[in-house]
Amino acid sequence: MYRSHNCGELRIADLGKEVTLSGWVQKGRDLGGLTFVDLRDRYGITQLVFNMDENAELCTQARKLGREFVIQTIGIVKERSSKNPNRPTGDIEIEVTTLQILNESKVPPFTIEDESDGGDDLRMKYRYLDIRRTPIQNNMIFRSKLSLETRKYLDTQGFIEVETPFLIKSTPEGARDFVVPSRLNPGQFYALPQSPQTFKQLLMVAGVDKYYQIVKCFRDEDLRADRQPEFTQIDCEMSYVHIDDILDTFEGLVRHLFVHTLGMDLGDFPRMKYDDAMRLYGSDKPDLRFGMEFVEMNDVAKGHDFSVFDSAELIVGICVKGIAEQYSNKDMKELTEWVQRPNIGAKGLVYVKYQEDGSIKSTIGKFYSDEVLQSWAEKFGAQKGDVLFILSGETDKTRKQLSELRLEMGKRLNLAKPGDFKPLWVMDFPLLEWDEDTARFYAMHHPFTSPKKEDIPHMMTGNHETLKNLKADAYDMVINGAEIGGGSIRIHDRALQAKNFKLLGFTPEEAENQFGFLMGAFEYGAPPHGGLAFGFDRLCAVMNGQSSIRDFIAFPKNNQGRDIMIDAPAEIHDNQLNELYISLNPKGN
Amino acid sequence: MYRSHNCGELRIADLGKEVTLSGWVQKGRDLGGLTFVDLRDRYGITQLVFNMDENAELCTQARKLGREFVIQTIGIVKERSSKNPNRPTGDIEIEVTTLQILNESKVPPFTIEDESDGGDDLRMKYRYLDIRRTPIQNNMIFRSKLSLETRKYLDTQGFIEVETPFLIKSTPEGARDFVVPSRLNPGQFYALPQSPQTFKQLLMVAGVDKYYQIVKCFRDEDLRADRQPEFTQIDCEMSYVHIDDILDTFEGLVRHLFVHTLGMDLGDFPRMKYDDAMRLYGSDKPDLRFGMEFVEMNDVAKGHDFSVFDSAELIVGICVKGIAEQYSNKDMKELTEWVQRPNIGAKGLVYVKYQEDGSIKSTIGKFYSDEVLQSWAEKFGAQKGDVLFILSGETDKTRKQLSELRLEMGKRLNLAKPGDFKPLWVMDFPLLEWDEDTARFYAMHHPFTSPKKEDIPHMMTGNHETLKNLKADAYDMVINGAEIGGGSIRIHDRALQAKNFKLLGFTPEEAENQFGFLMGAFEYGAPPHGGLAFGFDRLCAVMNGQSSIRDFIAFPKNNQGRDIMIDAPAEIHDNQLNELYISLNPKGN
Repeated sequence: MYRSHNCGELRIADLGKEVTLSGWVQKGRDLGGLTFVDLRDRYGITQLVFNMDENAELCTQARKLGREFVIQTIGIVKERSSKNPNRPTGDIEIEVTTLQILNESKVPPFTIEDESDGGDDLRMKYRYLDIRRTPIQNNMIFRSKLSLETRKYLDTQGFIEVETPFLIKSTPEGARDFVVPSRLNPGQFYALPQSPQTFKQLLMVAGVDKYYQIVKCFRDEDLRADRQPEFTQIDCEMSYVHIDDILDTFEGLVRHLFVHTLGMDLGDFPRMKYDDAMRLYGSDKPDLRFGMEFVEMNDVAKGHDFSVFDSAELIVGICVKGIAEQYSNKDMKELTEWVQRPNIGAKGLVYVKYQEDGSIKSTIGKFYSDEVLQSWAEKFGAQKGDVLFILSGETDKTRKQLSELRLEMGKRLNLAKPGDFKPLWVMDFPLLEWDEDTARFYAMHHPFTSPKKEDIPHMMTGNHETLKNLKADAYDMVINGAEIGGGSIRIHDRALQAKNFKLLGFTPEEAENQFGFLMGAFEYGAPPHGGLAFGFDRLCAVMNGQSSIRDFIAFPKNNQGRDIMIDAPAEIHDNQLNELYISLNPKGN
Repeated sequence: MYRSHNCGELRIADLGKEVTLSGWVQKGRDLGGLTFVDLRDRYGITQLVFNMDENAELCTQARKLGREFVIQTIGIVKERSSKNPNRPTGDIEIEVTTLQILNESKVPPFTIEDESDGGDDLRMKYRYLDIRRTPIQNNMIFRSKLSLETRKYLDTQGFIEVETPFLIKSTPEGARDFVVPSRLNPGQFYALPQSPQTFKQLLMVAGVDKYYQIVKCFRDEDLRADRQPEFTQIDCEMSYVHIDDILDTFEGLVRHLFVHTLGMDLGDFPRMKYDDAMRLYGSDKPDLRFGMEFVEMNDVAKGHDFSVFDSAELIVGICVKGIAEQYSNKDMKELTEWVQRPNIGAKGLVYVKYQEDGSIKSTIGKFYSDEVLQSWAEKFGAQKGDVLFILSGETDKTRKQLSELRLEMGKRLNLAKPGDFKPLWVMDFPLLEWDEDTARFYAMHHPFTSPKKEDIPHMMTGNHETLKNLKADAYDMVINGAEIGGGSIRIHDRALQAKNFKLLGFTPEEAENQFGFLMGAFEYGAPPHGGLAFGFDRLCAVMNGQSSIRDFIAFPKNNQGRDIMIDAPAEIHDNQLNELYISLNPKGN
């Protein structure tokens, strides 16, 4: 027996017991005739004590223990004279009678502490040491708990977890697939799923009624900072449902998860139409932890000989409370430069300061009288001490820019508080997006999304402008400005699905070749159905108030898609290539 | 709202309620002025009734419903005059007031009944219809329940589910990998994991302590009848454990699963050494639902001038109870031919019949006196009416042949009863297997398996014969003759691991290139650890008394590794190949 207890469970009630503990040496301290060793495992840290006077040999042995040595000890639980209230085991220590080294350790390349001195690359190369750190280990435990609670909730709601295949078929629509050459079918390839979308719809046709799966998905994308080539979804689908059935069910799921992991009841989630989200926050995933709703000003700002506004499609502003005195001219200049940065792209920033002394200071004071600017204050609900920031230009771009500024101000003023969670459903997304460059429509959600029932006739017969305005039965769940899930009611009618493929630029042959199996299934009694998928990695991060998903993934890849610990991907043997009927083509593209 | 109730829940207590049901038309029957429609969903079947006298239009509409049409109905729950005691809803029917067709269906290519008339290929092509059949749907529900119960049990035991990566590195040792070309790393490939073996060991080094995962694994093998290129494992690993800790934990898991799915307590699992299993059953996965243990006879059968036995390495038999009168000469001849079939490969079959009248009849009567044959009866515990079957030859082959005969007799005599479950741990497997053809050792379990502690010195210094006799701390869980899981205590010492790779024919460079990350991890405080993996598909099948895993997999592949429903694998676009820096090489091998 390697241990009678773990390193986190002994308490004052255990005094006098002989116990066996195993774990890692966190650190040792020599104080006079005493040597203290902190012994660590997943469950906690327990202090071991060795007395030079009582057992010189054992104590000498203990003094030679290096950091991260793996040891087994037998000893007696004693009360500590100097207790550590910050540690659950802080009232006791183990007076060691036997010590055995189970495995030695080289000096680790970085400290195994909550705050490590290891850089990103080093931590990833020695990920097995990085995970020993409590914050990362806690992330793994949180993730495991979250997935189990997800399953427990969905089980009580009658969902069945069904595993869908990983070796499927490549579909050029959407993101790039990872492909897998087939040895048994020369010249042919499987693809790894970007999502189980078509399979979960087939499961609805199959009468599974309520499906879920926590499942890996794959996208061969150029990796941005926080994207991973493999990622995990909570994937769900239900039959015989309208939108409300789905929203209620998955709002219930997320509320359950918050209650059972963070002990927090989120209450009912507000629902906002996509158009309203864009109008009020310039974003389809607004962070509702703070206000600063957009106020559109075309009616009050045009016609005052300020050509910038007069020529703008949209003039829109936000009111930032209480910073009038705090933000100097220099600050305003810096903020103007901030919105002018290429990744924001505003031409300039107009502000109106309502100062504490009642005066008004503005970059556009020579075009607008104080009376006019005062009337704007009413429109915005601004008071003394507040500042309006106003942007103008083409509608979509301006909204996006102001959304960035709003989030930046929220950040600078600490309005987006950690531990505060503001969920939201965003509804009624457009069905199609027109892309000017390729002169074609793209599916805003995906090609299987149903238009809203009242829009179906327009979809079947509408002209270009009508098509642009079609709304979908699609919805996203947003928490604190992060999209954590999204879904839709699906098309379950072959003709409507064929029409959608046509609008998306598929020839009938392409549609048949890629999705014939699904359209065929729709002819054999497909029930109405819909569902959604949560980004599980993102959900873990958002619930912990963190912006990066990487520390919630045990073995993530770096930005080149590499696992630098195992050094993958790597070259393979020529005979492997030959068996797969492929060869390297170094010129590639 | 598509439904107020599902098709399986209405009872006599619901009489008089107005309900809304949706589902598939199982079948319709017209009886005089009444039309009955069985409406089906995942939860059951409810009878709808339409009355021509009361509502001719509605009834006419109902008579036009085809099989598998998707409909929604509103109606009143009524008591049936002719009840169906075989159906939970059999006391009631719905007197329909409103009927709406939600989707039509073509005539399905096979019947959606418990016993379908569809052949394998047709069922796989239309798998979404096949899954509508209750037995397949029940398999999916069973599988989902089994995975959830697995997680619940392991959670209570302190295990964390950690997701390990799917895009890893190809390791030529073992089965063939599926590989995935990397676009961002030209000329390099990921491999899909055959198991998360190295990652779970790294998680032990990382201090995760107790890990599990229900996870897809991949092997590019030539597919035998019941193999799938992707399959699911319950993968587990524990730190600071000896064998007993592991066996107790996972025996507990399987007992939990049987209690919570089949309501059956398996009791304590017997444990048997590999050598004993081979000696007594000729198999490392004996079916213990019946006896017929092997009895070795070299001591009593040699030296009687019967050259076949005199020259044999092993003479071994089984006693089959009570068939002496039942098995005619013709039957014996047929059985002899059965053991001579190429896939069994015995030269012949010796039998000794102890007939009810006290006489003895045997193929070798002229070499052995009745007194000798009578003494054999005592050795076997045979009585009047029993028959001994005896094979002889080279030890390993003869045992294998007799094992096949034993299983065949168990089958013919219905001794392997469905619903009877006999679990077993097989222990102390050999560490290494010598292969004459390639003149090298192979790992009996895998290269990370630890020799038994007492064998470690022999492993480090032993000669060829010593190495062949090394025993491993490896174990299999067997139920009813099927291996449902296996594992081992792992090596956690770099030098021992390096030695094992050397014995397995790796050069130091190959070992470092392929598994350097693991051996490196062993230098930073690797704890003693071990674990096991269950074949989840197999476990589902065995627990349901079925021999094929295919009907427990929602979307299985056929023997050519094809999904014939979606028609995968398939050709991909040239630009996909170019982006991946590979080209087709039709000559291949």
